[in-house]
Order: sequence, then C-alpha cells, then structure tokens
Amino acid sequence: MKIGLKWIISFCVIAIVAIGGLFWNPAADIPDTGEFLSEDKIVGADVAWILAAAGLVLLMTPGLSFFYGGMVGRKNVISTMLQSFIALGVISMVWVVVGFSLSFGESIGITIAGKHYGIIGNPLSYPFFSGVGNLPHKLMAPTIPFILFALFQMKFAVITPAIITGSFAERVRFISYLLFIVLFSLFIYTPLCHMVWHPDGLLNKYFGVKDFAGGTVVHMSAGFAALAGALVVGNRKNPHHEPSNIPYVLLGTGMLWFGWFGFNAGSALSASASAATAFGTTTIASASAMMTWIFFDRINGRSVSALGACIGAVVGLVAITPGCGFVSIRESLFIGFITAIVSNLMVNWKVLKKVDDTLDVFACHGVGGIMGMILTAIFAHGEKASLLHGGVDVFLHHMAALVLVSVFTFLGSLILYKLTDSIITLRVSEESENKGLDLSQHEECLQ
Amino acid sequence: MKIGLKWIISFCVIAIVAIGGLFWNPAADIPDTGEFLSEDKIVGADVAWILAAAGLVLLMTPGLSFFYGGMVGRKNVISTMLQSFIALGVISMVWVVVGFSLSFGESIGITIAGKHYGIIGNPLSYPFFSGVGNLPHKLMAPTIPFILFALFQMKFAVITPAIITGSFAERVRFISYLLFIVLFSLFIYTPLCHMVWHPDGLLNKYFGVKDFAGGTVVHMSAGFAALAGALVVGNRKNPHHEPSNIPYVLLGTGMLWFGWFGFNAGSALSASASAATAFGTTTIASASAMMTWIFFDRINGRSVSALGACIGAVVGLVAITPGCGFVSIRESLFIGFITAIVSNLMVNWKVLKKVDDTLDVFACHGVGGIMGMILTAIFAHGEKASLLHGGVDVFLHHMAALVLVSVFTFLGSLILYKLTDSIITLRVSEESENKGLDLSQHEECLQ
Amino acid sequence: MKIGLKWIISFCVIAIVAIGGLFWNPAADIPDTGEFLSEDKIVGADVAWILAAAGLVLLMTPGLSFFYGGMVGRKNVISTMLQSFIALGVISMVWVVVGFSLSFGESIGITIAGKHYGIIGNPLSYPFFSGVGNLPHKLMAPTIPFILFALFQMKFAVITPAIITGSFAERVRFISYLLFIVLFSLFIYTPLCHMVWHPDGLLNKYFGVKDFAGGTVVHMSAGFAALAGALVVGNRKNPHHEPSNIPYVLLGTGMLWFGWFGFNAGSALSASASAATAFGTTTIASASAMMTWIFFDRINGRSVSALGACIGAVVGLVAITPGCGFVSIRESLFIGFITAIVSNLMVNWKVLKKVDDTLDVFACHGVGGIMGMILTAIFAHGEKASLLHGGVDVFLHHMAALVLVSVFTFLGSLILYKLTDSIITLRVSEESENKGLDLSQHEECLQ
Repeated sequence: MKIGLKWIISFCVIAIVAIGGLFWNPAADIPDTGEFLSEDKIVGADVAWILAAAGLVLLMTPGLSFFYGGMVGRKNVISTMLQSFIALGVISMVWVVVGFSLSFGESIGITIAGKHYGIIGNPLSYPFFSGVGNLPHKLMAPTIPFILFALFQMKFAVITPAIITGSFAERVRFISYLLFIVLFSLFIYTPLCHMVWHPDGLLNKYFGVKDFAGGTVVHMSAGFAALAGALVVGNRKNPHHEPSNIPYVLLGTGMLWFGWFGFNAGSALSASASAATAFGTTTIASASAMMTWIFFDRINGRSVSALGACIGAVVGLVAITPGCGFVSIRESLFIGFITAIVSNLMVNWKVLKKVDDTLDVFACHGVGGIMGMILTAIFAHGEKASLLHGGVDVFLHHMAALVLVSVFTFLGSLILYKLTDSIITLRVSEESENKGLDLSQHEECLQ
Repeated sequence: MKIGLKWIISFCVIAIVAIGGLFWNPAADIPDTGEFLSEDKIVGADVAWILAAAGLVLLMTPGLSFFYGGMVGRKNVISTMLQSFIALGVISMVWVVVGFSLSFGESIGITIAGKHYGIIGNPLSYPFFSGVGNLPHKLMAPTIPFILFALFQMKFAVITPAIITGSFAERVRFISYLLFIVLFSLFIYTPLCHMVWHPDGLLNKYFGVKDFAGGTVVHMSAGFAALAGALVVGNRKNPHHEPSNIPYVLLGTGMLWFGWFGFNAGSALSASASAATAFGTTTIASASAMMTWIFFDRINGRSVSALGACIGAVVGLVAITPGCGFVSIRESLFIGFITAIVSNLMVNWKVLKKVDDTLDVFACHGVGGIMGMILTAIFAHGEKASLLHGGVDVFLHHMAALVLVSVFTFLGSLILYKLTDSIITLRVSEESENKGLDLSQHEECLQ
Repeated sequence: MKIGLKWIISFCVIAIVAIGGLFWNPAADIPDTGEFLSEDKIVGADVAWILAAAGLVLLMTPGLSFFYGGMVGRKNVISTMLQSFIALGVISMVWVVVGFSLSFGESIGITIAGKHYGIIGNPLSYPFFSGVGNLPHKLMAPTIPFILFALFQMKFAVITPAIITGSFAERVRFISYLLFIVLFSLFIYTPLCHMVWHPDGLLNKYFGVKDFAGGTVVHMSAGFAALAGALVVGNRKNPHHEPSNIPYVLLGTGMLWFGWFGFNAGSALSASASAATAFGTTTIASASAMMTWIFFDRINGRSVSALGACIGAVVGLVAITPGCGFVSIRESLFIGFITAIVSNLMVNWKVLKKVDDTLDVFACHGVGGIMGMILTAIFAHGEKASLLHGGVDVFLHHMAALVLVSVFTFLGSLILYKLTDSIITLRVSEESENKGLDLSQHEECLQ
C-alpha cells in the first residue's frame, strides 16, 4: 500500500517539533525584562479557580464534538466528532511552538500619532513556551503564574477552529482540514487575539474593543471562517437528513454550558465578584435564549424541539460571551432574548439557506458574536463605557471594529481555504461523500 | 397552521420578562440595610470553590436527563431528557425574576410567642436580582459575593422540578409540564426553601431542622410532588418495557455523582474542612448504597444489574444530602446501607407499585429524603444536635417537621396539578401516548 | 430460585462493614501524636483546588467505563462499563475500612543500614478513617485537612482496578472480578502506594523513586495486573469484532483528559505554580501523543482513526503522569511523542498479540507507565534529579525500582488471580461468553 507523501510530511513535522523542542536553548529562558512580578504576588485562590476553569474550557471541545456529532447524518458522526476533538492535539502543539508568542508576545504593529499599536506578537518572544514560567505577568495576569495564563488561553485557541467545522461537515477531507486549522490559527486567530487581548493590541488600545471572554476573538472569527468555508467547499450533494442523535446534542449542550463557566467566569482571571457576575450573566443569557428559541420556533409554526432548545442555549452563551463581565443579570436576560430571535431568523432566512452551512455555524456563532459585540457596546457598565452609559464614541469605535474584524476574518479565511485547496484538495470525492466520511476518511462507522 | 394561544402567551411572557427587566429601576439597587459586609470580607478561596461547585450543580441537570432518559422506553427518550433540561431555562428565569426573593428575601411569616418565624420571602426584596450584588450577606454567606450565593442556590431550584419528571414520564404534555414547574417553584419550592434555609425560616428557627444540602428542600419535596403527579396524571397504557439505554443511565449517574460534590460539599459555602467532610460522606454513602443495592437485589432473586448499581448510588447520594456535613464517614457508610435497603423494599413493594411512578421517583428521592432527614436527626454531631447526642427534643421536632413537609409538599403539589390541569390538560391524548412523546410533542425521534 | 452462597456472604460483608463501623470506638479518634498541624495551617486556596481535583478524579472512572465500553463488542458493553463503575463502590469501601491505613498508616517495613524503610502501612492506624480528621498532616499534606488528602488518594485507589478490566473484558465472571479487585487493592495497590508515596516508603526513601501522580502506583501496577489477568483468564473464543461505539470512546477520552487535570495537577496538593506546570505538561503530552499516534498509524498503512486518536491521547496522559510536575512543557512534547511510538509498536507487536489483552491495557498503561518512569528518571529537573541533570545514580535506582515493581505487580497479581480462581472460577462458561456478559451476568442488553 502506498502511503501518501502528505502523511509522511505530517509525521515528520510532529517528530521535528517533539524532538526539536528539546534542543531549544533553555539558557535563554526567562530573561528578566521587568515584565514579571515576584512569586509572592501569586494569589492561591485565583490559581485554584483558573486551574478549574482551564479544565472546564478543555471539556468544551469534546462537548462541541457531541453537539455537532449528534446533528449530522449517521454516516458522518465519527468524522465530525473527530474534527472537533483533533483540535485538542493540533492546536495545542501549534500554541506551544509559536501560537502563544504570536498572540501574547512582544507587540509588533503600527504607529498612529506617535503611539504604538500591536497587530501580532513577536514569534521569538516565547517559542516552545520558553520564558513562560511561574512568575505572574504584570499586565496580562498579575496574580497567577504566567504559564497558567498561557494554558488557559490555549483552550480558547483550541476550540475556535473546532467551532468552524460545523459549516463544512460531511464533505471535507481530514488532512486538508488539519492543514487549514493550522493556517487559520497562525494567520487569523493569533493576530486577532493579539489585537483584542494584548495590552497594546490595536483593537484594544485604539478601538477600545471590550471582549471579556472571546465573543470577537473566538465566535465572530469562527463564524466568518465558517461562512467562507461553506462557500469555498460548496454545498453537499444530499443535504437533507434528520439529526442522527439528539441525546448527543443534549449531552454536548450540557458539557458546553458547564464548560462555558470556565470560559466566561474564568476570563475574570480571578476568583472574584467579577467572576461571579460573569457566571451569572452567562447562565441567564443561556436560559433566556433557550426559552425564547423554542417559543419563537413554535409561534412560527415549527415544533418545540430538543434540538431548538440546545441551539438556543448555545446561541445565548455565544451572545453573552463578550459582555459577560460588563453587564448585569437583567441585561443578560435581554441579550439572550434578542440574540435568540435574530439568530433564529437568520437560521431560517432563505437567502442564507442557499449557502450550505451544515450546522448553521454562521447564523449561530457568527451572528451571536456580532450581536454580542453590539450589545456589549450598548450595555457595558462603567463611565462612558457604552452607548447607554454616555459612550457614543465607544459605541462607534466598536462598530468600526466590528466591520474590520468581519472583513479580516472572512477574507482572511477565504484566502487560507484557497491556499489549502491548492495544496491538498479540500473536498472529498463524490464517492467518498456518498459513502460518508466515517468510512471514507477513517474506516470507522457507527454500529 | 393554527398556533395555539398558549404558545403566543408563553412567548409574550418571556418577552415581557426579558424586556421588562431592563426597565426595573436600578436606582433602587443595593440599599444599605446593614445586611451586607464590606468587600474585603470576601474570601477568595471560598469564591473559587463555590464558583466550581455552582458549575458542578448545573451539570447535575443534564446528568439527570441521561439518568432518566436511559430508563424510559425508546419512544420517550428525547422528551424525557428535554423535560429535565428545560428546567435550566424556565427555573433560572423564574429564580431571577422573583424566585430568589421568595426564597431568601425579607422574611414574611407568623409570630409565635413573640418571635417571628418566616414562611416565605418578600417578593420585592430582590426582584430581577436587584440588590443582589458583590458584597457578602452577613448571615447567609458571609465570605462570598451575595450574587454567587444566589446563583449557587439557583441550581438547586433548577434541579428540583427536573427530579419530579421521572414519575409522570411518557405521558405528560410538554406545555402543561412547563406551567406546573413554574407553579411548583413559586408555591412549593420557594416557601420550603425559605422555611428551611433562611435564618428566620420556620422550620429552621422553630423546628431546628438541619438540612445541610437539601434533603428536605430538594429531594423530599420532589419525591412527594412526584407521587402526587403520578396519581393525578394516572397510569400509563403500556407501562412495561426495557430501559432504552443503560449506558445513558451509567453516564447520568457518573455526572450526578460528580456534580453532587458541588451540591453537598459546596453547601459548606466555603473551601474548608467542613466541605471536605461533606465530600467524603457523600461519596461513601453512595458507594455503600450502590453495593448494598446490588447484593440486596441478588439475595432477593433479582439479577445484579448496572441499572441497580446506578439507582443504588443515587439513593445513597440522596440519603446523605441532609446530613452530609453533620455526620462522620463511618456513619455515612451506615446511612447508605440502610437507606438502600428501605428504598429497594419500597421500589419492590406491591402497594406502591399500583401507582405508576414511572422511574420510582418517590421510592428513591422521596424515601431517600425522608430517611436522610430521620438519620440526620439520629446521627448529627454536636451538643444535643441529635438523638444519639442527647437531643431527643431535636429528634422529635425533626419528626414533626417531617410530617409537616410531607403534607405540605404532597397536598400542595396535588392542588397545583389540578390547577394546571384545569388550565391545560396535563395528560397527552391516548394517540400521542402510543406514538411516544418524542414524536407527538417534539417531532423528533431516535434514529 | 436458589441464591448462591457467595451472594449471601457478599451482602453480609457489606452489612458487617456498614453496621460494624458504627461501633468502632470513636474515643480512640485522633490521638495527638504530634503528626498533625493546627487548623490555622490550612490554606483555603489549596482546599478549593483539591476539592475540585478530587471530584475530577472521581469522574475518570465513569470516563474509563465509556472509553472501554465503546471498544468492546455489542454484547459486552454494559458489563464492561459496570466493571469500571463498580470500583467506585467496592474500592471506596475497602479504602475506608483499611485501605487508607495500609497505604498511609504508620510504616511497617525493614531496616537497612540502621534506617527504617516502609513496605506497608499499619492497618490499625486509621481503620474506618478513625484519626482521619480536619487537621493537616505535617508530612503528607501540610496545607489541607487530612481527610481531604485521604479522599483524594481514594480516587486513585478506585481507578486502578478499573483500568485492569480492559484486559480480561468479555469473559470474566462479575463476582470473581469483585473478589479479585478487593485482593488486588489490599495486597498490591496499598503496599505499592505505601512504598512510593509514604515519606518512609522503601521505593521513595531508599530508591528515590519520583512518581508525581501515579505512573508507577496506578498505571504500571494496573498494566502488569492486566497482563497477568489476560494470561490467567485465557483468550476469548471470538476475539474479532468492531468496536461497538466510537462516540463512547471519544466521550470517555474527553472525560479522562478533563479528569486527568485533577489527577496530575491535583497531585501538587496545592493551588500553585507546580500544579499549573503539571496541568500544562499533562495536556501537551496528550496532544503530542494523539497526533503522533494517528500519523504513525497512517505511515504504517493503517487508517487515521478516531479510535487511534483516543488511544494516543490516553497513552500520552499515562506517560506524563509520573513526571508531570518535574519536567518542562518542551520535554512533555517529547515524552508524548516517544511513548506513543513505543506503545503503538507494542499494540501491533505479533508476540504480544498472542496474549488476548482485549483492550491493550498492558501495551497502553503498562508500557506507558514504564516509559513514563524511565523518562522521568531521564528528564526530571533539579540538582542530580535525573540522568540529564547529573543524576546517573538516581537513574540507575529508578531502573532497579522499575524491575522490582514489575516483578512484584506481575507475580503478585498472578498469585491473586489463581487464588481468586480457586475460590470462584474467574472465567464464565462458554455458553455465557457466547451469549455475552451483558445478558449472562446482568440480564441487561443494549436495545
């Protein structure tokens, strides 16, 4: 049997990374740049919560694999699940080697009016996590070891490409998918993450974008990449079938909801009242969106379904993500409500239906992320923090940033899909598609 | 297609809550009533643990949906799961709007011998969570933000109606069920919660009821509501079938056990030795009940089954709930053992079998809760804290409270079922029942 | 129907334990031996994290039941799952009664050159957890209540026999299995745990064995017991079939990965930078092993499968366990990589395939544990801590210990299987095997 060159290269890359890392000069570790605080600034309680939270965020990726896996057809369950799951392997490695550096390394960017604004991190700041040690970073996470911050952030990088998979499910080649998510992570996720969350990042420092837990970085970027993906890969041959396993969708939703507490309340980076508020707005937005979705479905003549309840709950979680630490419980009720309606309308909108976004990733995560970004700019508490608190300017900046992010993530993804496709064809053959990806890609199937 | 008025009303209620909340006068927030401590009284470690614990309790509801969903017949798996799951939406919203106020608001009640005893909280104390902020409450949870206490308590309110669903599974109309759990939550759960857990509550202050983590509030109330429900809704047409999916039951049990650590050890409201003890008694009672159940089954001529192991484990968890922080590991071994035998006898008792309590909710949660309440009054440590520690009086008060709670929850639920039934028929048509609720209620089915 | 004597005895044992515990003289509790610190030495943050971590480790056992259950044939899913799950009952009880004493009680052992080295703990130190209280133990866990340490350790004792089950799946009698794991726990696990983790333990104090989180105690011991088990029980009649449910394997892997954070990062026994490092090396070794496994499979002509990804991830987790707190992220990348290749070769090695180790427990856990022990002795940081840090001596001691542990666990298990077999036949009848254990042992089956 002939083994494709692409597999040999893949194995070699892993080998080079695994062995090469050993020889990275450890003497260069942790130069004293004055960026780090002393060990006694570590707050044990914050460490305890962020350890738990980082674990919770990890669980979201298997959760997503069940949320998606239960919705696709019987011949594509395993492959869809594996696409989410494998991100835990691929992106974790990318993150260690260079992803974290690109996201949170020394800011490289542009100068506007004498001020520096970061576009991307220096890949040589923390390659192979060198320099990522036990001391807390002054600006990024002043009460927990820097390594814990880097690991917590890793889980966000992992789940983002996993979210995308829903749009081109049932027809994408596994190895091309792996290549794409590496490229996406390097060229879309890390600069966006840098621009939004690095203290010197352009969207943060210049545009004043507020994104507590990743509505922009994670959900909008995944949503637009999903839309681009569905367009590039093209519609399925046989798009109509029943979800293969609703209990899996329920399980996935439960795991996502549970894990989202780590995602949102963990983003406070402390065991504090701010974390508690984020916890509360998260669960309430989700509850509100779930109920809104099923009743809105019903008054539009559709049935009240478990699938609808699950999608609604997840849309609520997406919508509250950017604002979870900035708004009140009352406002989270409204954010869940209004986003559920808008997303529901988008899911059922004929124009959008022409694009075969298999599991409505754009309508849920993209639109949810956009709504979240807008609503955060409307409701965020604090002096001049948002439209309702005297911050017209903040609101307009947010809107400009929204357009910028949309264009960047959509066009950027489009280019990366084309690039991937030119290296290894993205779409499986028609025969493989008919057979289902479980058998054609992995020689596995549901019994 | 004609959309029933009930659905339009349902959607409007959600809309009114979500939009109305925005206009609740925030100026009235957090009046200084001297009830709250300053922010520096917050203990980070306690916050870290209760954040994690609140997440764990949330996970119990999806866990329960798998525990129950795996036991019912194939045509009712999704609907049974959704009944649990939807409580995360409905009850969370009820809790925010008025449930928390009714449970922990300013005490409204009766005066006995010049002393005030609370029956229910003032609904105007914390409507829409106003006044529920970052500062810790002096009496209720002096080391964590009040909002975190309110959110932790929310998960208890959520799971209680979800537990009930097992008794009338396979034959209840979805919309009537939603109406019932709203009523149950408002008129049974919140007053009971107030009476047991509010510092001025009648059962707490007058009867001295000890309920560390909700044996009375959660399990007894759910158990009696389940019994009443099975009686009102009536027996199924075809009650005999095999459990549809034992692995789901195992998964649900695992999630419940895991989540129960948040439920019980979290109820210490601190990261302390008390939480550690509760953690230990919880897991040991469960282990003991699991082993007792399967061997007791076997010596009575039944097979040693995975289903039995799971039910036994859950019965042990129920039994230890009220006493988990008050008894020793040795005593928890016994509590698991004896409750497993009593519950097992009840499950197989011919008289009780005449009532079609689909998943034996009364025999497990009701009886487990009763046993827990009695055994707590026998074993609880502390001077005059229980029968074995010189507290005959405490024991007798507990027994009186037990009768009171039983009557209140049983009769109260009965009335609420009748009320619900008079508004929207509780039971589905015979045709729908034969078809299965998955299809008839939600147009979904297992593949 | 005649009930076998063995069941009556089993029930009686449970009854004696549950009732007998009540009468254990509590006056003897907590003698002041100067071993314990005062309550103010308890660090809340450490308690918060270890409570969460202990919960996470509990979840690993249900996780394992899905990891294994999804791999076996359809007629043995429930029985395989139950074998893991029941360890939560059996071993928890054993641990309380005498297991913890045998593991961490006063050291009983031998004297070499005037120094005492422990082989096993005194069973009378903490029977029925007496003396296991709220105060922290000076040497074993100086910042958390001793009871929390005992409970955290309990979960390790629980999962070890559960890991073994994969090797003799599909053909072992349930009651014999229960007897075996009790014997294994008492005579293999507890002395090994004492020798490695008690401050005076032979392997710890004399051989200087470093085992951060249980690579030796848990995985090597389970791996060798599995090998012995497959040999004693013999090959299956019909060993060839497809895994019954790959999604279950994915779910189990997700739960294991999530739980492993408690296992490894929890083993720091504190919410500290050490825990954060262990968290990071754990997830990276797993990621690296997962990717290595699937690509290595592919370049050897096998398909890239979800099953392979899952097995690879778990092998990485096993490999990093002993060294997780001692090595860097870079080194964990390599540890995952090299162990995945070695384990993969072993899984596909013809010689080993002659032994019908149903789910390759030895090749995964045994070999993973051995590799982890060797690699820890090569890479562990600290002055003279390992081969690469000037500790040739340490390395050689580790290798000697490795041989000792291998012989002890393999031969010990062999003897215990023979002993068990002489009391109750280990293997089911051929008829029962053909029928499948779900039906023949538990009268349950997948629908």
